[in-house]
Amino acid sequence: MVAKVSIIMGSTSDMPIMEQAAQILNDFKIPFEINALSAHRTPEKVMEFASEAYDRGIRVFIAGAGGAAHLPGVIAALTPLPVIGVPINSSNSLDGWDSILSILQMPAGIPVATVAIDGARNAGILAAQILGTGDEEIFNKVKEFKLSLKEKILKANKELSEIKFEYKTN
Amino acid sequence: MVAKVSIIMGSTSDMPIMEQAAQILNDFKIPFEINALSAHRTPEKVMEFASEAYDRGIRVFIAGAGGAAHLPGVIAALTPLPVIGVPINSSNSLDGWDSILSILQMPAGIPVATVAIDGARNAGILAAQILGTGDEEIFNKVKEFKLSLKEKILKANKELSEIKFEYKTN
Amino acid sequence: MVAKVSIIMGSTSDMPIMEQAAQILNDFKIPFEINALSAHRTPEKVMEFASEAYDRGIRVFIAGAGGAAHLPGVIAALTPLPVIGVPINSSNSLDGWDSILSILQMPAGIPVATVAIDGARNAGILAAQILGTGDEEIFNKVKEFKLSLKEKILKANKELSEIKFEYKTN
Amino acid sequence: MVAKVSIIMGSTSDMPIMEQAAQILNDFKIPFEINALSAHRTPEKVMEFASEAYDRGIRVFIAGAGGAAHLPGVIAALTPLPVIGVPINSSNSLDGWDSILSILQMPAGIPVATVAIDGARNAGILAAQILGTGDEEIFNKVKEFKLSLKEKILKANKELSEIKFEYKTN
Amino acid sequence: MVAKVSIIMGSTSDMPIMEQAAQILNDFKIPFEINALSAHRTPEKVMEFASEAYDRGIRVFIAGAGGAAHLPGVIAALTPLPVIGVPINSSNSLDGWDSILSILQMPAGIPVATVAIDGARNAGILAAQILGTGDEEIFNKVKEFKLSLKEKILKANKELSEIKFEYKTN
Amino acid sequence: MVAKVSIIMGSTSDMPIMEQAAQILNDFKIPFEINALSAHRTPEKVMEFASEAYDRGIRVFIAGAGGAAHLPGVIAALTPLPVIGVPINSSNSLDGWDSILSILQMPAGIPVATVAIDGARNAGILAAQILGTGDEEIFNKVKEFKLSLKEKILKANKELSEIKFEYKTN
Amino acid sequence: MVAKVSIIMGSTSDMPIMEQAAQILNDFKIPFEINALSAHRTPEKVMEFASEAYDRGIRVFIAGAGGAAHLPGVIAALTPLPVIGVPINSSNSLDGWDSILSILQMPAGIPVATVAIDGARNAGILAAQILGTGDEEIFNKVKEFKLSLKEKILKANKELSEIKFEYKTN
Amino acid sequence: MVAKVSIIMGSTSDMPIMEQAAQILNDFKIPFEINALSAHRTPEKVMEFASEAYDRGIRVFIAGAGGAAHLPGVIAALTPLPVIGVPINSSNSLDGWDSILSILQMPAGIPVATVAIDGARNAGILAAQILGTGDEEIFNKVKEFKLSLKEKILKANKELSEIKFEYKTN
Repeated sequence: MVAKVSIIMGSTSDMPIMEQAAQILNDFKIPFEINALSAHRTPEKVMEFASEAYDRGIRVFIAGAGGAAHLPGVIAALTPLPVIGVPINSSNSLDGWDSILSILQMPAGIPVATVAIDGARNAGILAAQILGTGDEEIFNKVKEFKLSLKEKILKANKELSEIKFEYKTN
Repeated sequence: MVAKVSIIMGSTSDMPIMEQAAQILNDFKIPFEINALSAHRTPEKVMEFASEAYDRGIRVFIAGAGGAAHLPGVIAALTPLPVIGVPINSSNSLDGWDSILSILQMPAGIPVATVAIDGARNAGILAAQILGTGDEEIFNKVKEFKLSLKEKILKANKELSEIKFEYKTN
Repeated sequence: MVAKVSIIMGSTSDMPIMEQAAQILNDFKIPFEINALSAHRTPEKVMEFASEAYDRGIRVFIAGAGGAAHLPGVIAALTPLPVIGVPINSSNSLDGWDSILSILQMPAGIPVATVAIDGARNAGILAAQILGTGDEEIFNKVKEFKLSLKEKILKANKELSEIKFEYKTN
Repeated sequence: MVAKVSIIMGSTSDMPIMEQAAQILNDFKIPFEINALSAHRTPEKVMEFASEAYDRGIRVFIAGAGGAAHLPGVIAALTPLPVIGVPINSSNSLDGWDSILSILQMPAGIPVATVAIDGARNAGILAAQILGTGDEEIFNKVKEFKLSLKEKILKANKELSEIKFEYKTN
Repeated sequence: MVAKVSIIMGSTSDMPIMEQAAQILNDFKIPFEINALSAHRTPEKVMEFASEAYDRGIRVFIAGAGGAAHLPGVIAALTPLPVIGVPINSSNSLDGWDSILSILQMPAGIPVATVAIDGARNAGILAAQILGTGDEEIFNKVKEFKLSLKEKILKANKELSEIKFEYKTN
Repeated sequence: MVAKVSIIMGSTSDMPIMEQAAQILNDFKIPFEINALSAHRTPEKVMEFASEAYDRGIRVFIAGAGGAAHLPGVIAALTPLPVIGVPINSSNSLDGWDSILSILQMPAGIPVATVAIDGARNAGILAAQILGTGDEEIFNKVKEFKLSLKEKILKANKELSEIKFEYKTN
Repeated sequence: MVAKVSIIMGSTSDMPIMEQAAQILNDFKIPFEINALSAHRTPEKVMEFASEAYDRGIRVFIAGAGGAAHLPGVIAALTPLPVIGVPINSSNSLDGWDSILSILQMPAGIPVATVAIDGARNAGILAAQILGTGDEEIFNKVKEFKLSLKEKILKANKELSEIKFEYKTN
Repeated sequence: MVAKVSIIMGSTSDMPIMEQAAQILNDFKIPFEINALSAHRTPEKVMEFASEAYDRGIRVFIAGAGGAAHLPGVIAALTPLPVIGVPINSSNSLDGWDSILSILQMPAGIPVATVAIDGARNAGILAAQILGTGDEEIFNKVKEFKLSLKEKILKANKELSEIKFEYKTN
């Protein structure tokens, strides 16, 4: 089994958020790897790691970081593969504004596909969508997943019918 | 020639930004289509348009919008294909904060791959990277493109050597 | 009893806020309906729901959502009826700035009547005021309600007279 | 001809924005009045003006102001009629954040229906929608107006087809 | 004993903050009154109250409010006396940004002397400083108070000397 | 003629804003002095200047500064007199947010009476109001000034009556 | 043992943050002093303290403060030594935005080397780096310290290998 | 002549700001080098460049960048030397908030000494101050420079004495 998605985070303290990406990839049965490597503390390791990713079979990166979140951009600088960035609202993180802007506002030539603050689960879904552009089996799994979202909200709507007010009509 | 990327914008006034996505896709020789369809003014049209995209051959969307920018999210709700969102700093747009947040902060299950404010060129590059995960020819074009970025900055560095100060050593 | 106001929310987790709109409409004896339908998870359902609202007797919408809050705008795109938007400060919601801007900054032609963050109660009052423009009975109820606000604050002021400081003169 | 909508602004310097509300009401053939009265410079006048509005035939207020924009809220405090607030991005106005928050964040009991920064045209449309809840003729005009928005964007889309790129397919 | 300072707040829920203004005025032995009157719920009462203040002996107002905080500005509109505004970080108050901007950004001609968020104690000191411009006894009390601040911090510095590190030299 | 108000600014580049304070004091016939002294470049001078102010006859300070605007707070630390702070939106000043927060958010014990961004004219009026608490002549001038504001807006309202729309009723 | 670094804070309540600077200096065996002196409450003391620092042996200042944080800038105004500023997120501190901007946005001529919100530990490391420019022993300690960061993250990465998912490949 | 300060920027378009650092270093007669190297476009080059800096004689880095400004942090990750970061307000840069936060909010262990937006001149002064901790000649130049600031502002103050108002006393 060769990993297609590489989940990477700047610190193991980001794992409670980032494992949501792992979980959804697991649900989609897409093989993945997880590593903690810091753009600032292990720059040479990150460089090696990103440069060799394509040959290892990796097709998408999911990189999460908080504060002055450089990891997603540094990975994006080192590989032609698409990089999904997850801004993480860590402590001392100015409510996440710093991580959002450090990931989103990349310069021309080096895009990072940014998702919502702490949006690791959505990052996992986006990775599946990206792989689905070249893999019909994965595309179909995403399609089914989207249908399941619809069913959940329709079921939830029924709960609301149990709430009673004198002038409520449904 | 079948379009693989669908560029869509909420208003033709966004074209000066969004044509930068078209230009880079053209440079990569990736066929694309361009449309102006508003999530708010032509909702039924958008629905039809997004639902049929896969069968038309589309594999990636690039959607740009300003203000309360709903277009990328509405497209993402209607297709399992990946959607790249371009926040546009239109007039009355609160410096673009409204379009950034309206595109970035999508709920669980419906990611939009957001790029920087007015980052349509990067959106085009990201679309190529996404297609490259399943198409080696495109992957190699992105790889070459990244190398060309390096050369440009090394050339630019030489310009700086012409600037003279008495205590400048290079 | 035919509902005149349609309360709609993107997720049942918004109910603790949105039921405040229901409560005040109930107090005003204005019939209403409540539904959870997501602009992103059930787009076709939302389209059908909004398009048929006028014929069902609905005259005002109250739509609440958090994050990249598209629901109020999507409803507004689908009906000529007035739509009141309630930005909700959900978790991961950047203190509500994202929901405020996603609802407030609608493009020309598609207004949403936005109220304060988590302001569902005020949304209910505004719905009554809107109906009151064509219904004198409702108008008079709003008038009475406004008088009751005055009495509450005058009564509260008396509490302050019980607080003693040596140099306090009232 | 009795005015149904009262347009009010804090300063005549707000007229270039606020006349967009007048224009659209004129297009809808809804009679309206325009006044400049300041919550801070003519408080007694504002009080008299708002209190007597209903008896004069007014059914909706549109109030615009910049900076610490108190006018919409002060009107809302003085009448049971619905008040639409237009935040204006005047000079020294911190990009409009001050006027948005001063109008939007009204306390419980006193809603103001806030529209986008400088959104006077949308305020006029919202006023028509509000009157339309009790007046079928106005409702139908709004309905037609919404259809015309759709046509404009579909026509605009055709303009895009004239733009040529080698790899553009439509 | 005639009150010289009038403390006013929009809601009795602001009392835990506003009583800090009362406490410091009490310490300075400056007579004051406290009232809860809402710019939005009791506008006529506020008007009467502010207009007659000078004749009642009042020389300075301290007005506190949260959210779209209109009370200080409305008082300032109604009296030539100086008004000190206290932005209050109430619940649903966007961390206080709304109250700060609604009080600070007053239009030309109607200043409000704004203090820090929840800065009621400083508002009381500022009231004393203002009265001190025409009353030497109060001026001297403020002078003594400022000296006492210095002593407190010098005493606090001594606490730090008890903290031991091997390489700490004081 | 002894100055009662001391206008101070951090740099002569702030004079175009700060002279508006001078102008209104001149209109009120209140003697004043103007100085440029920097909290950062001439700290000893500022210290001497502020400490001796009371004995020189000064009763109110108006201090303007941009960026990390320390001047008003430093003056407030050195004198028991009231200090009015004017945040100035200088170049490189982050739209004035830095100067607002550096002046407004003073610690307990050291208030600065902050006015709106670039609000030097209002600072002059506030200085007059403060002096008016102990000087009936000045109080009456402020009272007259406030009446003149009312007349200006009533006159401006008449201009609006000249604007014609078919459905405008006044 | 003569202190080379002077740690100073505006209030002893900042000690839980600022002692992190002390701890890392202690680890580096760099002698330091700690004092609480307020720019606003003890301005003369601060002036004396900063002016004499060089002669006492001090080579770097680390100054922490919250709110309208003037202390680092005031020290920087009084000494030619480098000053490191630590913005502190104290209560009533607007999430630290006020302290960041009050320290960062210093005027031309008076830099303060600003670190992240509550970043006292980094301030200590930066002080060591600064001293290291003229002291090879300290430079080597910083070098070793940086290597230890690398080892920690590599060790942390191993923890992640223990987390099991069916489709996880490492 | 061996460079002691290395000025580095992400793009030659940053040169109009960054040359202000060069100018002041030139004035201080401190040898320096200037290079444009992008953290994202030439990561390997940056790595080599930063790792060898100490041996080349460099003692301080000044790194400027806009948007998601990773360059200063990437340099700081690669060298034990102190790095001064200059946030640059480039086009599409969200008024510089993105570059400020991307540079300031560095994680524990990797400080960047951040100066004000576009504050390259201050970065040059700070570099001199840092070198001055181990070099008395440079220290004395900074000391003189600080005195010259004082003289400039005192001279500027004289200009203000030429401005005449009837009630101006100095």
